Amino acid sequence: MVTDVVNAEVSPTGQFDILSKYEIHKLTDDSRGPQYQLFRNCSLAVLNCGNYMDDGKELLEKYADFDISVIPTERSVKLKVTNAPASAFVDGKIIRGIAEHLFAVLRDIIYVNSEITGDPRYDLVSAQGVTDAVFHILRNAGTFDRDRSPRLVVCWGGHSISREEYDYTKRVGYQLALRHLDICTGCGPGAMKGPMKGATIGHAKQRDQHGQYLGISEPGIIAAEAPNPIVNELVIMPDIEKRLEAFVRTGHGIVVFPGGAGTAEEILYLLGILLHEDNRAQPFPVIFTGPTSAADYFIRIDQFIASTLGEDARSRYQIIIDDPEEVARQMATGIEKVRQYRKETGDAYYYNWQLKISTEFQRPFVPTHENMRSLELHKRQEPHLLAANLRRAFSGIVSGNVKDQGIRNVEKNGPYELRGDPALMRSMDTLLESFVKQQRMKLPGKEYIPCYRISAD
Amino acid sequence: MVTDVVNAEVSPTGQFDILSKYEIHKLTDDSRGPQYQLFRNCSLAVLNCGNYMDDGKELLEKYADFDISVIPTERSVKLKVTNAPASAFVDGKIIRGIAEHLFAVLRDIIYVNSEITGDPRYDLVSAQGVTDAVFHILRNAGTFDRDRSPRLVVCWGGHSISREEYDYTKRVGYQLALRHLDICTGCGPGAMKGPMKGATIGHAKQRDQHGQYLGISEPGIIAAEAPNPIVNELVIMPDIEKRLEAFVRTGHGIVVFPGGAGTAEEILYLLGILLHEDNRAQPFPVIFTGPTSAADYFIRIDQFIASTLGEDARSRYQIIIDDPEEVARQMATGIEKVRQYRKETGDAYYYNWQLKISTEFQRPFVPTHENMRSLELHKRQEPHLLAANLRRAFSGIVSGNVKDQGIRNVEKNGPYELRGDPALMRSMDTLLESFVKQQRMKLPGKEYIPCYRISAD
Amino acid sequence: MVTDVVNAEVSPTGQFDILSKYEIHKLTDDSRGPQYQLFRNCSLAVLNCGNYMDDGKELLEKYADFDISVIPTERSVKLKVTNAPASAFVDGKIIRGIAEHLFAVLRDIIYVNSEITGDPRYDLVSAQGVTDAVFHILRNAGTFDRDRSPRLVVCWGGHSISREEYDYTKRVGYQLALRHLDICTGCGPGAMKGPMKGATIGHAKQRDQHGQYLGISEPGIIAAEAPNPIVNELVIMPDIEKRLEAFVRTGHGIVVFPGGAGTAEEILYLLGILLHEDNRAQPFPVIFTGPTSAADYFIRIDQFIASTLGEDARSRYQIIIDDPEEVARQMATGIEKVRQYRKETGDAYYYNWQLKISTEFQRPFVPTHENMRSLELHKRQEPHLLAANLRRAFSGIVSGNVKDQGIRNVEKNGPYELRGDPALMRSMDTLLESFVKQQRMKLPGKEYIPCYRISAD
Amino acid sequence: MVTDVVNAEVSPTGQFDILSKYEIHKLTDDSRGPQYQLFRNCSLAVLNCGNYMDDGKELLEKYADFDISVIPTERSVKLKVTNAPASAFVDGKIIRGIAEHLFAVLRDIIYVNSEITGDPRYDLVSAQGVTDAVFHILRNAGTFDRDRSPRLVVCWGGHSISREEYDYTKRVGYQLALRHLDICTGCGPGAMKGPMKGATIGHAKQRDQHGQYLGISEPGIIAAEAPNPIVNELVIMPDIEKRLEAFVRTGHGIVVFPGGAGTAEEILYLLGILLHEDNRAQPFPVIFTGPTSAADYFIRIDQFIASTLGEDARSRYQIIIDDPEEVARQMATGIEKVRQYRKETGDAYYYNWQLKISTEFQRPFVPTHENMRSLELHKRQEPHLLAANLRRAFSGIVSGNVKDQGIRNVEKNGPYELRGDPALMRSMDTLLESFVKQQRMKLPGKEYIPCYRISAD
Repeated sequence: MVTDVVNAEVSPTGQFDILSKYEIHKLTDDSRGPQYQLFRNCSLAVLNCGNYMDDGKELLEKYADFDISVIPTERSVKLKVTNAPASAFVDGKIIRGIAEHLFAVLRDIIYVNSEITGDPRYDLVSAQGVTDAVFHILRNAGTFDRDRSPRLVVCWGGHSISREEYDYTKRVGYQLALRHLDICTGCGPGAMKGPMKGATIGHAKQRDQHGQYLGISEPGIIAAEAPNPIVNELVIMPDIEKRLEAFVRTGHGIVVFPGGAGTAEEILYLLGILLHEDNRAQPFPVIFTGPTSAADYFIRIDQFIASTLGEDARSRYQIIIDDPEEVARQMATGIEKVRQYRKETGDAYYYNWQLKISTEFQRPFVPTHENMRSLELHKRQEPHLLAANLRRAFSGIVSGNVKDQGIRNVEKNGPYELRGDPALMRSMDTLLESFVKQQRMKLPGKEYIPCYRISAD
Repeated sequence: MVTDVVNAEVSPTGQFDILSKYEIHKLTDDSRGPQYQLFRNCSLAVLNCGNYMDDGKELLEKYADFDISVIPTERSVKLKVTNAPASAFVDGKIIRGIAEHLFAVLRDIIYVNSEITGDPRYDLVSAQGVTDAVFHILRNAGTFDRDRSPRLVVCWGGHSISREEYDYTKRVGYQLALRHLDICTGCGPGAMKGPMKGATIGHAKQRDQHGQYLGISEPGIIAAEAPNPIVNELVIMPDIEKRLEAFVRTGHGIVVFPGGAGTAEEILYLLGILLHEDNRAQPFPVIFTGPTSAADYFIRIDQFIASTLGEDARSRYQIIIDDPEEVARQMATGIEKVRQYRKETGDAYYYNWQLKISTEFQRPFVPTHENMRSLELHKRQEPHLLAANLRRAFSGIVSGNVKDQGIRNVEKNGPYELRGDPALMRSMDTLLESFVKQQRMKLPGKEYIPCYRISAD
Repeated sequence: MVTDVVNAEVSPTGQFDILSKYEIHKLTDDSRGPQYQLFRNCSLAVLNCGNYMDDGKELLEKYADFDISVIPTERSVKLKVTNAPASAFVDGKIIRGIAEHLFAVLRDIIYVNSEITGDPRYDLVSAQGVTDAVFHILRNAGTFDRDRSPRLVVCWGGHSISREEYDYTKRVGYQLALRHLDICTGCGPGAMKGPMKGATIGHAKQRDQHGQYLGISEPGIIAAEAPNPIVNELVIMPDIEKRLEAFVRTGHGIVVFPGGAGTAEEILYLLGILLHEDNRAQPFPVIFTGPTSAADYFIRIDQFIASTLGEDARSRYQIIIDDPEEVARQMATGIEKVRQYRKETGDAYYYNWQLKISTEFQRPFVPTHENMRSLELHKRQEPHLLAANLRRAFSGIVSGNVKDQGIRNVEKNGPYELRGDPALMRSMDTLLESFVKQQRMKLPGKEYIPCYRISAD
Repeated sequence: MVTDVVNAEVSPTGQFDILSKYEIHKLTDDSRGPQYQLFRNCSLAVLNCGNYMDDGKELLEKYADFDISVIPTERSVKLKVTNAPASAFVDGKIIRGIAEHLFAVLRDIIYVNSEITGDPRYDLVSAQGVTDAVFHILRNAGTFDRDRSPRLVVCWGGHSISREEYDYTKRVGYQLALRHLDICTGCGPGAMKGPMKGATIGHAKQRDQHGQYLGISEPGIIAAEAPNPIVNELVIMPDIEKRLEAFVRTGHGIVVFPGGAGTAEEILYLLGILLHEDNRAQPFPVIFTGPTSAADYFIRIDQFIASTLGEDARSRYQIIIDDPEEVARQMATGIEKVRQYRKETGDAYYYNWQLKISTEFQRPFVPTHENMRSLELHKRQEPHLLAANLRRAFSGIVSGNVKDQGIRNVEKNGPYELRGDPALMRSMDTLLESFVKQQRMKLPGKEYIPCYRISAD
């Protein structure tokens, strides 16, 4: 244990190369402020990666003595790390990809907090204000390339999927890359890692040296799971809602792999937006896919959408089972339509300004028992608003299943109560039960005790 | 006359490529605000260039109908110009170098005013605050390159020098470029243009494709004289003092060609800084040079410095007459010492943070009769403070000679009165008379009527 | 089966882009000449690759109808393929990496035959002439980069090693790449593929975008096994001896993984060269390595070398068991010494001109029973000549084990007879028996019947 | 005189970086062979340049002691120069552009002689063989860029034109470059230098960093006049005819400035080719242009063409007087047609393979009195053959005017006799007399004594 930690100083990469005295002092000060703990934990997560397989994640508790600080130099800053995981270093020098991630943490936790989300000149309340903030964070992270054609595929899906499903995500990533498409994911394990791994082989075969592997994380996620070093652009958004907005505005199409309640939440978010009247004309390829063994998952999702949001919603996605090539072909075709549409309307390729995202989808939802009970779960509202409420319901279930605060809430007050139209509630019940049966609600091997109770009005 | 104007829309280059909606609206609004007239005049100056020789400067009055406005697009802005000089366009399309200068004007007049000098978080009063602001403006203009070794030579000198002196400045620029040195000037005619012209030939012969031709201007200068399109990086600083600070912090050495009172002012500014105790250890090559016919100019300057600031000041510069190769050799040697010093002290190559510039040299001097009369022109002060006061005296004389406000002041109140130690005042008188005799006070051919009166205490 | 073939035309990459009419006609003609069958078979091997895993190698017999021809165009040539494996194509377009390999085949089989090995001006008999030819073939393939520091590690070892040994080769490749070293192999499976796979991850983590994956093959090898598409520079040398010379002149160090008689042959080749008087001063890092389970293999090799070639030979390599990091560290240190040596002696970084390779190691050895029996296997000769004879003995055994002609020879005339010094022959017997026991003589699971008989004088 | 020579060793640039031992020895040997004198003289010419103005050409006699030799190094060669003009060096190091030209001389005089024109496998007799050789020399010099669109304008015209005409060629070059066109000339003074000088300013203004300045010379020309260092690609063709063929196959359009008999020869060469039946469909913009003062020159040429080759020939060029912008506009339009034509017919952009050049235009013409007298100067032949014969007549006159051998021939045997159709001979007489009157036959200020006598059949 003595030998596997390292003390070192890390020199800046990218935007922190050239700083003014003012910036040097501000950064040093800010890093010691209220954001310190978050900054320290995310930094540790990023450093805790560097083995060839990156599989056996050691626990963060192991590095309780880890410390990081920003130290000023004559013309910039360095990061001083103490008791850092040795695997991030080669013969005492930090691995460059990990250094880049480390400075991405500094940038997105400290700098963004001070310069964007903390700048009083920015309006973070209106829909336009939030959209601008998401844009500024992404641009500041260098993710926009004016000269790149649309080619970014967002991949969603569960983090604890089966080996078969995981291999399938690799094959899809491979076929996408063979068609010169890039990958964006949430930067964790499972369906978030597989497509990137597959794509590296595809890009290598096509001699595509500038493949983009964009990871969009948020503090709660990154602290739990180091971003795979394949990620060559890492952005940490301030919260879940801005992260979702970043996905749909930077991605040119979305592939959904099997997952659980969290994936259902993402699907409802996406459909809720696409069902908005203003987005009707926009091409936006969405494909649900998995191996044959996962077919049932998507059949259930499809039935649920049909019975709640209707045929209109179903027309916004395709389901393709066990055919990575077809997934990639359809995605390439769909993205070509996106390119033409953006060109005709003069919109940017790197950011979908035209997509209407109403504030229902931007405002965080806090899953208290009260808020869960009060959700409007009935069809007497526009489909995109129903989608917004259903998303909140699933968001609450995810919280009750796996998040600290949610689990404690449920322990104290019993399961969440969800009330609504009888037919709607039946659909929901059926879907959730299928998740339980498929062992998608928690890790396989443990019996699932529902954190919710469904009751019809 | 009808055919030589053009209406066009110009698409952005560089940093304006990728803007948020917020920025688009702010830029559009700001451009219509109080800065509009300045923005319009500088834009016209930049456009009024594009002939092969760029010599026959037409008068700005010719383009009284010229108008420019910022218009928002889906993802950025365009500049719409009306009745613009046709010579900036080729078959209806703007020349790219001129488009770059046009957006440099937008950036430095509108954006910098709003984001840097207008941002309440910046302190523009303290020495460090001013130095930071100068840094931010230059970095925002993209002039810093972390990987470039020190190689930037600032060239100062008069704008209305003789043909022989002009040709000499070209030969010096040529020899500097043969030694892989770059050129920075004030971006006007005469000694500000010659070195760049010569350097293009030298860089071409050395296959040096990335020669830097940095022009540092300020609004009052640019409106009078279009920057030569050889300038491939144009920065417009907010005022004369920040422009001088930009010269001495970005340049790695300075060549001074013959000029008049303005050049004397620049020399005194520079020596005043170099004489400061804190700057004693810093290598900083300074060379005064000209053809044989200009020898007398530098002899007089040298005598004046000897008798006022002393031998210490003389040790900070070399005088080399009629030997461009030797000038370039000495400059290359001197800059190598700068490189070593920066390396040893860990300072940046692109910005001289360590140079101490006290507030005497940062604060604008307003040459009223009262202020001129009150200048402390005696030796009972530290040399660098005496240099500061002498600089102010010359600054006032320049103003009384050529600037609108100064000329009106003198017309109304008679010549400025300069009072001080008898010996000092004699030196000053001798120097100024030599300028008059050499016809360096005004354009040749007109008799010079002094705008000052020297009297000893 | 009907659907998995494709007819297509493939446009040239690299050097075939710009051809003269003369070259177009010559290339077209030559491709129809005596080299056609070889050209066709190697092309098919290269095309028969393109699945994600590239594991389930289909048999070449499957594509009996495959055809390829060079067709002239207005300014270059195209390759027309008929009934080609579909996996090399994506939506009808060939994968770019495979296209590059296809034109490498054209270049090295047809063009090199006509322009280098077939040019009467080249002398292919003298040692210098052979070395020049090897150089011209490699330069023509674009493998030399004047500006690259020494960083190429040649990896040797068996093609049918255990899973554990294969994983070990990946870990070594990964550690080498983390230290910015590149990989060169013989371009087949097993120990020739693992290090490249591991290195891609290491280079990606270090953001090393220009990793070199050099595959040096020869017609007999490539036809049996498609080069992995990770190989981004493929060269096909005309014969085994030129391939070995290419390895030792382009590589800056050599890692030997476990193998069988073939690997022993390569080790003897290498030691034979390094033992030459003229090569004594040359730094050349050689490391034998494998997982713990492979320790016995290297112990046996080491004992054999000690008892035949002596301590001097042992001093030219290190054995490192189960420590990929240490292997990489030692290799990095050794290659730094190579860099210094080349720098001091003014030799090229990209080709080791100074290495003395005598004609014993350049002339092909034909393993007839007569030749095998006549080998001088005794210590009454210089060690480097003994190494040459021992290499021939192992070369014959490899042939008797796995090569068509050799197997037929042995079936017809009984086992090869190897005669020599009693002590030497005992050492050899012991080593070969250990190979048999470790199942390294043939694929595991089949009983091995020796193709040789050892008898002492 | 003592100080202005330098002894130095020059390291290789470009293709000589990476040589085999065979090539090193061959190059060293060949450079000492029969080509030595030519190699030495051309090298001296190239070195004799390096002053800022490059105007005051010193005489080669001044450097009678100059010597150059190829010396082998471990992995390449160096050039050792003794008593070389100091102006080619900066502080002892050669100017890089001049080093490139020096190695271009080595390449085209020594290497090409050995590898292309001296290789028995090349056929230098047939039209196709010559065209292939021209191609190989140009490709070997690196002038082809597969990715560059057609943009190369060949500029022809006299080397000793008036200042006004020279300035005009600069203005045309400037306007061409503003339209992103490149310049190719014969690499001497006058009309061969002006367009390049103007184009550097135009390219700089358009931020066109990759402007091509191609100089195509031949040994007789380069020895007399150093190529301007603006030339960033220098090719020395073996003789006049291959040089002319290189012009018309690499250029995408031709501008002809005023000249004398030599320019008339070039015009006849060009028209002779364009009049060939096979070239009828090819777009090929040709513009004759000059300032107003040169109008008469082109009127005379135009009349001569009308009366000899007819209206068909006149339709292949435009005459534009005193309008550089219009010249550039027409050229840009014409070259766009060339691009479309090449694209449609699949021909290369970098070399006009389709242009038919018959052997009449490839075979050198030796202007003996016998050959001159025997020229078929009548209209009873196809126009393109008449053009060929007229070209020969002018070629002879150029020779009699300025070339050593020609002048001696005329001194010995009296003026050349030209016989032919009375009308034709009258036209010729008129044209030649106009040249004499315009002082275009020899340098201004000397009286011209004709070297020819025209007589009608």
